[in-house]
Amino acid sequence: MDYVYGPGRNHLFVPGPVNIPEQVIRAMNRNNEDYRSPAVPALTKTLLEDVKKIFKTTSGTPFIIPTTGTGAWESALTNTLSPGDRIVSFLIGQFSLLWIDQQQRLNFNVDVIESDWGQGANLEVLASKLAADSSHSIKAICIVHNETATGVTNNLAAVRKLLDHYQHPALFLVDGVSSICALDFRMDEWGVDVALTGSQKALSMPTGMGFVCASPKALEASQTAKSVRVFFDWKDYLKFYKMGTYWPYTPSIQLLYGLRAALDLIFEEGLDNVIARHSRLAKATRLAVEAWGLKNCTQKEEWYSDTVTAVLVPPYIDSSEIVRRGWKRYNLSLGLGLNKVAGKVFRIGHLGNLNELQLLGCLAGVEMVLKDVGYPVKLGSGVAAACAYLQNTIPMIPSRI
Amino acid sequence: MDYVYGPGRNHLFVPGPVNIPEQVIRAMNRNNEDYRSPAVPALTKTLLEDVKKIFKTTSGTPFIIPTTGTGAWESALTNTLSPGDRIVSFLIGQFSLLWIDQQQRLNFNVDVIESDWGQGANLEVLASKLAADSSHSIKAICIVHNETATGVTNNLAAVRKLLDHYQHPALFLVDGVSSICALDFRMDEWGVDVALTGSQKALSMPTGMGFVCASPKALEASQTAKSVRVFFDWKDYLKFYKMGTYWPYTPSIQLLYGLRAALDLIFEEGLDNVIARHSRLAKATRLAVEAWGLKNCTQKEEWYSDTVTAVLVPPYIDSSEIVRRGWKRYNLSLGLGLNKVAGKVFRIGHLGNLNELQLLGCLAGVEMVLKDVGYPVKLGSGVAAACAYLQNTIPMIPSRI
Amino acid sequence: MDYVYGPGRNHLFVPGPVNIPEQVIRAMNRNNEDYRSPAVPALTKTLLEDVKKIFKTTSGTPFIIPTTGTGAWESALTNTLSPGDRIVSFLIGQFSLLWIDQQQRLNFNVDVIESDWGQGANLEVLASKLAADSSHSIKAICIVHNETATGVTNNLAAVRKLLDHYQHPALFLVDGVSSICALDFRMDEWGVDVALTGSQKALSMPTGMGFVCASPKALEASQTAKSVRVFFDWKDYLKFYKMGTYWPYTPSIQLLYGLRAALDLIFEEGLDNVIARHSRLAKATRLAVEAWGLKNCTQKEEWYSDTVTAVLVPPYIDSSEIVRRGWKRYNLSLGLGLNKVAGKVFRIGHLGNLNELQLLGCLAGVEMVLKDVGYPVKLGSGVAAACAYLQNTIPMIPSRI
Amino acid sequence: MDYVYGPGRNHLFVPGPVNIPEQVIRAMNRNNEDYRSPAVPALTKTLLEDVKKIFKTTSGTPFIIPTTGTGAWESALTNTLSPGDRIVSFLIGQFSLLWIDQQQRLNFNVDVIESDWGQGANLEVLASKLAADSSHSIKAICIVHNETATGVTNNLAAVRKLLDHYQHPALFLVDGVSSICALDFRMDEWGVDVALTGSQKALSMPTGMGFVCASPKALEASQTAKSVRVFFDWKDYLKFYKMGTYWPYTPSIQLLYGLRAALDLIFEEGLDNVIARHSRLAKATRLAVEAWGLKNCTQKEEWYSDTVTAVLVPPYIDSSEIVRRGWKRYNLSLGLGLNKVAGKVFRIGHLGNLNELQLLGCLAGVEMVLKDVGYPVKLGSGVAAACAYLQNTIPMIPSRI
Repeated sequence: MDYVYGPGRNHLFVPGPVNIPEQVIRAMNRNNEDYRSPAVPALTKTLLEDVKKIFKTTSGTPFIIPTTGTGAWESALTNTLSPGDRIVSFLIGQFSLLWIDQQQRLNFNVDVIESDWGQGANLEVLASKLAADSSHSIKAICIVHNETATGVTNNLAAVRKLLDHYQHPALFLVDGVSSICALDFRMDEWGVDVALTGSQKALSMPTGMGFVCASPKALEASQTAKSVRVFFDWKDYLKFYKMGTYWPYTPSIQLLYGLRAALDLIFEEGLDNVIARHSRLAKATRLAVEAWGLKNCTQKEEWYSDTVTAVLVPPYIDSSEIVRRGWKRYNLSLGLGLNKVAGKVFRIGHLGNLNELQLLGCLAGVEMVLKDVGYPVKLGSGVAAACAYLQNTIPMIPSRI
Repeated sequence: MDYVYGPGRNHLFVPGPVNIPEQVIRAMNRNNEDYRSPAVPALTKTLLEDVKKIFKTTSGTPFIIPTTGTGAWESALTNTLSPGDRIVSFLIGQFSLLWIDQQQRLNFNVDVIESDWGQGANLEVLASKLAADSSHSIKAICIVHNETATGVTNNLAAVRKLLDHYQHPALFLVDGVSSICALDFRMDEWGVDVALTGSQKALSMPTGMGFVCASPKALEASQTAKSVRVFFDWKDYLKFYKMGTYWPYTPSIQLLYGLRAALDLIFEEGLDNVIARHSRLAKATRLAVEAWGLKNCTQKEEWYSDTVTAVLVPPYIDSSEIVRRGWKRYNLSLGLGLNKVAGKVFRIGHLGNLNELQLLGCLAGVEMVLKDVGYPVKLGSGVAAACAYLQNTIPMIPSRI
Repeated sequence: MDYVYGPGRNHLFVPGPVNIPEQVIRAMNRNNEDYRSPAVPALTKTLLEDVKKIFKTTSGTPFIIPTTGTGAWESALTNTLSPGDRIVSFLIGQFSLLWIDQQQRLNFNVDVIESDWGQGANLEVLASKLAADSSHSIKAICIVHNETATGVTNNLAAVRKLLDHYQHPALFLVDGVSSICALDFRMDEWGVDVALTGSQKALSMPTGMGFVCASPKALEASQTAKSVRVFFDWKDYLKFYKMGTYWPYTPSIQLLYGLRAALDLIFEEGLDNVIARHSRLAKATRLAVEAWGLKNCTQKEEWYSDTVTAVLVPPYIDSSEIVRRGWKRYNLSLGLGLNKVAGKVFRIGHLGNLNELQLLGCLAGVEMVLKDVGYPVKLGSGVAAACAYLQNTIPMIPSRI
Repeated sequence: MDYVYGPGRNHLFVPGPVNIPEQVIRAMNRNNEDYRSPAVPALTKTLLEDVKKIFKTTSGTPFIIPTTGTGAWESALTNTLSPGDRIVSFLIGQFSLLWIDQQQRLNFNVDVIESDWGQGANLEVLASKLAADSSHSIKAICIVHNETATGVTNNLAAVRKLLDHYQHPALFLVDGVSSICALDFRMDEWGVDVALTGSQKALSMPTGMGFVCASPKALEASQTAKSVRVFFDWKDYLKFYKMGTYWPYTPSIQLLYGLRAALDLIFEEGLDNVIARHSRLAKATRLAVEAWGLKNCTQKEEWYSDTVTAVLVPPYIDSSEIVRRGWKRYNLSLGLGLNKVAGKVFRIGHLGNLNELQLLGCLAGVEMVLKDVGYPVKLGSGVAAACAYLQNTIPMIPSRI
């Protein structure tokens, strides 16, 4: 059952699914249980409470849905909007594109604000649209916090500021798939109405749980939203929440215990420390890219992503060959360039339960791959740059002091 | 993290989620992988081929969807039907009721044929509806193969016979959640257009995979069906099948390897032997029920289910107390009576990777529970009846002869 | 890698190795660690403290040795005795026989007190030997607390009483392999000088740890004992205890964490409750044997073992065939008769992390096997007898009340 | 139960216990089994056959003993020698010292040939001793193939050559603990009489199995050797080999399946490729050490070890602080300097199931640690040197071409 065995560990640096810590793997190593026994609701209760913490919300209502990020998107949209509703959506890369495709197929009237791939959401255009929308025809703003395809992080606080400035009641829907639990995300403070993520990203679990968190305003909207929905309908969850049994249909017992372990690890490290660690690893990666003489796909520093770095390669190199070779020779898994940037970028995912030496092994591997494909990299240069920064900034592991 | 520890193994006899064999637990005990590497498509290809075998189809197209049975229902309906379509649906218990609820919320025109809970689908009414429908206004017949709430198995071959008899082109949609891989199910032979099941049932895996298999006719219908869908849209899967990458969004790496192991076990035992084992365990259970002087909720032998037995208790006993006590005193997990039969039946799930001595332990436990709650059972009687049958019928384990 | 696959769980009722609870399997599911880091000594310290509790000692010094029960025997003997030393040893079954064989090969002067297999240690003979030994030539009394081959439990308190009565200074060495953590064992109260057990018995772990606990008197003896030893030498352990690093050679990281989990489960249940559960399961087993019309190999009630029951079969039946058939047809693992009782007894191990319904499944299986091999058992009779007793005595699971 | 949690993976670079591949962890994730059922002997048979391959012997007889390397030593000595026998033993570091200590405590007459720590066995002295020993008073030559404390590999072929040259019949006993399965080792070709290793070294398993392989001459010697032994006595194994049940006492079921998986991985990669990989990783490590301006503890290239590199630090640095800091700040586990070289060297273990990027992560970590403790390393220098070599030499992963 191991079709492609190579000695040693696989170096998993795609921006999802990410490395699962042993503690989480262990917690999931179990038989099924009756999810209607008192044990599962007791566990679920703690999970729902704690999931709110990773969204930084106290007023939100979380839903843990047996689905992927794509399903979480659908849950966010169909519970709050009705067919024909005008929504403003930012197209800045492959994942925002896919969300927009979903929005269109769900029959919303999508007002797309496009940026070059490598740029963030164009908030000036948003401002003008909000300014012009005195009739409040815009029902929602849809934005990815972090575009995984290009490594671009959008400024959500600025979006909120604009909405407030224009006193616009549009719902604020955020795809936090590659951000929540890794980047600074503040649902309540930023007035986000629906935020969502998936288990296989910064939570460092297997795929299979979509986390959707709804503000009171979003919950209220769900009572009148006319989009057809059953599997993704919050109503069924709310009904079972009220009954205290929590699950309208069978959850994965293994993922519930895995989530418990994943949250425990995050709280043991401290969510703010987790975010700082991501910032540190990302900065080190960018320093390495610079040392290699390569460019970040992200065009401005303000948009730099702390979870994924998309690296532009010279035109004479096919970035897919870098990914292929990484895997075939070094047991290194990097992310492909997607769609418009296919062949032009490769991606280093540096999110989830990861530490510095793991990243440095990856960076060393990238250097060798670059040389393999004919790019004149100075071997060791990126690692040296990263180390110079990291050696100054890595904190002692608190439990080991 | 074990809120309710009791010594020894939990005796899991709810009709899902069911016991996972060690081999499957082991196969899933792993880190994430890049699902875009060549390894995952290579694995997926074998899975899709082999999943067809458990549906007994060669012409069908399987979809493995990261969802539950409820999502699989939605996938079956929305890909083949348009809002307003008339569908005939049988209401015979809680799960057919929930599916009908979904059908209605998805805006189909549901023509419900209701039976007493404990009876099977009323095919005479179906016959008359088909006879009357010369205009072919009926677009689909929706039926559960096995109603998990009452332990009733419907006669699918008879449904097909009626459709053929009236030369009716309605799609034939089957919920096989608690049947496929346990009961005799023949997609091609019975002309089933969409069949579906979930990983946590007879496949003996964790929850998280919905299996939906579409006939060529269903696939064709999906090209014109107007139900709104994105996450559940077969089109996206078919596009990635064509590309050979298979997954429109991130699958659970763990469940893929788990499925490989689960299918390997089923084929090692032989699907027909698996079905025979279920029949044997079910018969033993029914003999025990009879020996206890209790009635099967299923009103006629032709409907007896080989995956779950719903046992009627005398009016002076609350069946929920049986379930509670089983769990609290004997580490035994039985199924509750649901909705109309709440308090009136408890359910013994005997599906999945299970053997005779496991069942006999459960039956002994049920006897003690019955005594606990005041039912004058003769201790040992059910086990004796079951053993008398089993000792004559259990085959030698082939690998050990 | 599963040479002998059969569906469902294996019913493991040999008297060791026994069933491992999921919690322990989970705890061991991990990579290696540097055993010289601060983490492993910190863990070890808690283990050594807690291991003393299962021996019921406060003054004893425990050694956790990477070995089996056979190695634990050797550790007990070679650390406390010198070649040529006279020891009194009881031969009552295969395991006492093997220990005596070891004692002889280690060049002690073994004074064997033999009983019929099925009888306990002959303490009258011991009394006379002690009475006659005014010169204190007897250096040690060696006794198995529970003879696993015949299901005989010796009266250790009575041995101590004799030693005290004759004011005899002989060391009191006890094999507790199939008793400690399951039977009432009191190292300090009974003045045991060395007690030992193995991880794969009532601790419900994999094989690989031998636990040896030494009284202050035994420790003192170890300073002058002249038996040649290195691997088993307590001195090396004591040296590393003093340094706080604990391990003279590499321990199994996995077993250390497994032991932590195993002890946690035992303390959560309560050691006395664990012992009471073993007593309950054993009594139920004996009632079943009686109901089948078969005899216990153990000849008197005072010697009945609460961890293993050896069942005598009629002369026209080969008990090995019972074991073979249990495994080949029912996925049931029973213990063979050994040496003098080979072919004459089969053994049901009912020790470790086990509950009532597991045992009842086993008993039902034994009934069918008995019928298979031509013994005219009334099917259900044993289970009925066991249930009648158990239904009156099983307590509620404390965590679930 | 995680006392010292740090995010991400632990970087385990002690020279044992080493990293366990996921495949082996998975294989061991299981309940106990009856070791007297037909399944365990069937499995054991394949293991014994395949273990011979890693010793490169066809005529040897392997013993898999539930013990550690220390126990394997004792097994090798006590089965072949008698108290008072003269043996020549090389003292070149901590592990040869410990073995000599054991030899002395087992009452052999040990003729020690000492070298400086960092040098290999002094074969000239051996030659002169052999030359002088016309009476064949030397019964055995004891040598570590690879001294784990100093990273010195001895030339076994040269030892054999000397023995042959002097036509000396002494037994040739080899500690292969940190060599076998990683270094080129040829039991038959080199006429080794007893070779041994442990599971937690290059086999990449948990601790718990000592592997001892005996030549026909060693087996013959065991029939007359007078050393007292029971647990370690080969005779008991041979008796059970003959019976086909293989185990004189309970083996670890988990380790048996783990060994099966470990051997499968080694054979899939190819033993010679495994050895080449070790050579590559070691060479890369030495190039890094050189780039850092540090010295290898091993004084001559001919002794360089391909499994562990002991690095000398300048006198103003305490090497223990390097190890402590690696663990506390970088989640990096390095080996301490032991005994004579305590404080003077730290050790990088590069053996077992390991690949290049793992090593490079470690080397980057060492660089940062060196800087932390005040050594003026040029960050990136060692990684650059290692990469320059590795990028030219790493082969494609065969299964992925």
